[in-house]
Amino acid sequence: MSYRVILVIADGMADRPIKELGLKTPLESAVKPNLDRIAENGVCGIMDPIAPGIPPGSDTATLAMLGYDPWKTYSGRGALEAEGSGVKVLPGDVAFRCNFATVNDDLLVLDRRAGRIANEDAAKLAVSLDRIKLKQSLKVRFLFKNTIQHRAILVISGPKLSSAVSDSDPETARKKVQDVKPLDSSVEAKRTAQIVNMLMRAFHKVLLEHPVNRLRAKRNLPVANMILCRGAGTIPKIPTLQEKFEIRPACVAAVSLIKGVSKVAGMDVINVKGATGTVQTNYMAKAKAAVQALKKHDFVLLHVKATDVASHDGNAKLKVEIIEKIDKMLGYILANVSQDSTYLAVTADHTTSIVTRNHEGDPVPVVIMGPGVRRDDVADFGERTCAKGGLNRIRGLDLMPTLMSLMGKAKKFGA
Amino acid sequence: MSYRVILVIADGMADRPIKELGLKTPLESAVKPNLDRIAENGVCGIMDPIAPGIPPGSDTATLAMLGYDPWKTYSGRGALEAEGSGVKVLPGDVAFRCNFATVNDDLLVLDRRAGRIANEDAAKLAVSLDRIKLKQSLKVRFLFKNTIQHRAILVISGPKLSSAVSDSDPETARKKVQDVKPLDSSVEAKRTAQIVNMLMRAFHKVLLEHPVNRLRAKRNLPVANMILCRGAGTIPKIPTLQEKFEIRPACVAAVSLIKGVSKVAGMDVINVKGATGTVQTNYMAKAKAAVQALKKHDFVLLHVKATDVASHDGNAKLKVEIIEKIDKMLGYILANVSQDSTYLAVTADHTTSIVTRNHEGDPVPVVIMGPGVRRDDVADFGERTCAKGGLNRIRGLDLMPTLMSLMGKAKKFGA
Repeated sequence: MSYRVILVIADGMADRPIKELGLKTPLESAVKPNLDRIAENGVCGIMDPIAPGIPPGSDTATLAMLGYDPWKTYSGRGALEAEGSGVKVLPGDVAFRCNFATVNDDLLVLDRRAGRIANEDAAKLAVSLDRIKLKQSLKVRFLFKNTIQHRAILVISGPKLSSAVSDSDPETARKKVQDVKPLDSSVEAKRTAQIVNMLMRAFHKVLLEHPVNRLRAKRNLPVANMILCRGAGTIPKIPTLQEKFEIRPACVAAVSLIKGVSKVAGMDVINVKGATGTVQTNYMAKAKAAVQALKKHDFVLLHVKATDVASHDGNAKLKVEIIEKIDKMLGYILANVSQDSTYLAVTADHTTSIVTRNHEGDPVPVVIMGPGVRRDDVADFGERTCAKGGLNRIRGLDLMPTLMSLMGKAKKFGA
Repeated sequence: MSYRVILVIADGMADRPIKELGLKTPLESAVKPNLDRIAENGVCGIMDPIAPGIPPGSDTATLAMLGYDPWKTYSGRGALEAEGSGVKVLPGDVAFRCNFATVNDDLLVLDRRAGRIANEDAAKLAVSLDRIKLKQSLKVRFLFKNTIQHRAILVISGPKLSSAVSDSDPETARKKVQDVKPLDSSVEAKRTAQIVNMLMRAFHKVLLEHPVNRLRAKRNLPVANMILCRGAGTIPKIPTLQEKFEIRPACVAAVSLIKGVSKVAGMDVINVKGATGTVQTNYMAKAKAAVQALKKHDFVLLHVKATDVASHDGNAKLKVEIIEKIDKMLGYILANVSQDSTYLAVTADHTTSIVTRNHEGDPVPVVIMGPGVRRDDVADFGERTCAKGGLNRIRGLDLMPTLMSLMGKAKKFGA
């Protein structure tokens, strides 16, 4: 028998009990017959994506859940975002996440998103920035590309670069743009900081006089006169999932960070029409794409961002509604895969608290349903019910070996 | 919202089921309405202070529960005891725990505590020992200070010292005083062993002819004619809790070992009148001091030694009584802290078995009560009930990140 896995990760779905929901979590409040059916037929547990008490990023958590030790492999968000946006990042390159922003004459940030500038304007500005020439003596090239609205990617290529540099993005408005500083004493970090600062000044100069911005000013739109950069990163040096487990993996995700992680893990990234990474994403289209992907792949990661979006907005009601949509999505999957040969695992990449609006270090619930699992008596998928499940408390890094063992893809250690 | 934590550690409180108590543990036998209330409103679990099956010392367990990996940071008990006794130990110094003891002419130990010599006698003897001059060529200084009854501290300072030396204390009476031996092949260990042996002989010589001992002999009291040393240690090189977590930590403890651990962790050590580290300690004064400490601190460790004392004495009835006193102490705390902004965690640093009278490697129960915790259905605080709790099984090293995450002090890993 050849087995398949669909791993569904709902971003930030786990939560804490909140007063607004009668001391229940959003997951505990949702009507979710399919999630409960999966719990009833599967083995449940709680999982620390990284380790107990450590609030994970979606990048480190997803790396861990795909079987990569995040402490050893994580090398910054920038390169993962860039890969996810379709920009190839090579070993040695340093990539940044960028924003088009509005600053005043004193470089005080007025709007970190330049009024959520339209794709068309951003694209024209990006072309001009990408054409800037750096001194040949620096021996570096760069690529600047806008992605969605105010978001953009900067990749610097050349010898002696380092991702150990700080952000120019002050992260909040009404603060000044920061100088990029080396974060260690290496020649590489110092050189990279100098190059980025030089680029930021060159970008600023071009943006100040750009026709697109003159037109924006005339139309009373915030001018995109500064590029803010953050999250310097290099591409992780990791074996692909094919190499590690001899599987054919695919990923259905909308957000570029998860696409990027999936790409560096060697997964086929499947783009789905209507999958937006927002709360209005086309849940059912993603479910269909995941089921469809099983025809040519035996491991499909299906990632939904919306739960995290609702959490960061502190919107409990919306989070419950999204969980109910995810439940319907799972209903489609249950009805359309062979339960004799498919493992269905559902979890979250971290807890995002509706109250704190932040990623938190609490464990997440996890369930695995499929042939031969040690079904337990948990029949309700929630943060607290799953704590009584047969998996007990595992770590993110344990998930992939557990799934691979069920698939018959785990390698024996010893004889 | 700014949150606070009180972490109550009852030394050696955890135990095994014993026949004397109808196959219950002392904790299971005690009447403890407040502990049960905390369990009912909190999230429970079991915790391996170090790792499953490893009997912890109070020093290693407390280091772990404060977030320091004991395998990497522990460097012997001596320096922690010295710090806790108010003796400053600097990096490079080697410190020992010492006993005034009674030996016969063949250096056979007759009484490891010299009849639990009174503080006054010990102080006079210590002053004489501290005045001894070592050869200048050795380039070392030492400090010898009595603490309580037969207990004392020896700190050696100078170049090329090592804590890798054995004890002179044979640990039981009717054995001979041991030569201190180097425990590795380093020059430093060899030199340190020589210096300590030289000191032990010099101490013995001064003690034999000391007027205090002549008077003790006349009054038929055991003479304190030998110093036994053990637990060579250096000060751990660890960042403070302020540096690690940006908290303002305080410790309410009576025993010098815990005070010492707290000092090296950068905590303010609060001395409480009537807190003695014995079974007659003033429990309520400690509770009041802990609550009071929350005014200027946001993390308070409250340590009670008495449960361990009763265990080492094999006194089950007394252990139950002490647990009931600790319960009343917790009642005071519950009534006097804001439950909207305070996390209350209760645990033990290890299992001490009434039967074996030793520290054992069994896990300990742990509970955390406070805003947003995933309250479970455990309503009875015990070794076996907590094993069914929502925390499942964690390690000592997981406790601090878990508490810090609840306080909003945990740093996100990734983006």
